[in-house]
Amino acid sequence: MSDRQALLFANEFFYRAFAGRDLDALREIWADSPHISCTHPGWNPLIGRVAVLESFRSILQGPNPPDVQCLAPDAVLLGDVAYVLCHEALGGHFLTATNIFIRHGRQWRLQHHHAGPAASPPETTEFQPGPVN
Amino acid sequence: MSDRQALLFANEFFYRAFAGRDLDALREIWADSPHISCTHPGWNPLIGRVAVLESFRSILQGPNPPDVQCLAPDAVLLGDVAYVLCHEALGGHFLTATNIFIRHGRQWRLQHHHAGPAASPPETTEFQPGPVN
Repeated sequence: MSDRQALLFANEFFYRAFAGRDLDALREIWADSPHISCTHPGWNPLIGRVAVLESFRSILQGPNPPDVQCLAPDAVLLGDVAYVLCHEALGGHFLTATNIFIRHGRQWRLQHHHAGPAASPPETTEFQPGPVN
Repeated sequence: MSDRQALLFANEFFYRAFAGRDLDALREIWADSPHISCTHPGWNPLIGRVAVLESFRSILQGPNPPDVQCLAPDAVLLGDVAYVLCHEALGGHFLTATNIFIRHGRQWRLQHHHAGPAASPPETTEFQPGPVN
């Protein structure tokens, strides 16, 4: 498995753990570091492993745990740090996410997650770039 | 200047360039890489230096260029990659941002920017974490 494949696997692991309401798997994919952080849609950033995992516990045990699916992940590797940009589909709505990972041995673990509203599904391009020098 | 100070300086440089409608300074702070990316609030991610810089040109030349201010930046350094979490104040509204930087020599350059709605100003904590093992 290439580095990129391992990274995309880790990203998919996160979303399957979230959709599967699997808090043990979420504990596994988040980096074992006190400095992890998470910005849920419309929230302020949560800093630290305790706050981040407690937020997922709260969401998963709440009345409407999200049936979330990851779409169109795009991976950027920068040595032992990497990030994935992707869309999230939730019951007909779309979010866009930035997920930062760090390498632990041969595994990628989630360091920071930020999700917010998206303009449209990932296939649609709403902006046509022109020349910039 | 420490690495952390240089990183926070670069983050502040980005916001001053944005608020100052200084496209030349924005060209300078964004990494000189074809793989930079930017998720403006409510937009889909823009990929590539041409698309990213053209979006800033469009916003700055539009009817309501933002009078944006960075608040409460929190820096995380991971070798030659780093990120800053911060709030953005825009005329009484608040956003929260994730800004990923990469090191170019002694300078930090912006690799990815993602901004979305925040729950409140940065001083307010809306979530009280409990114990998680």
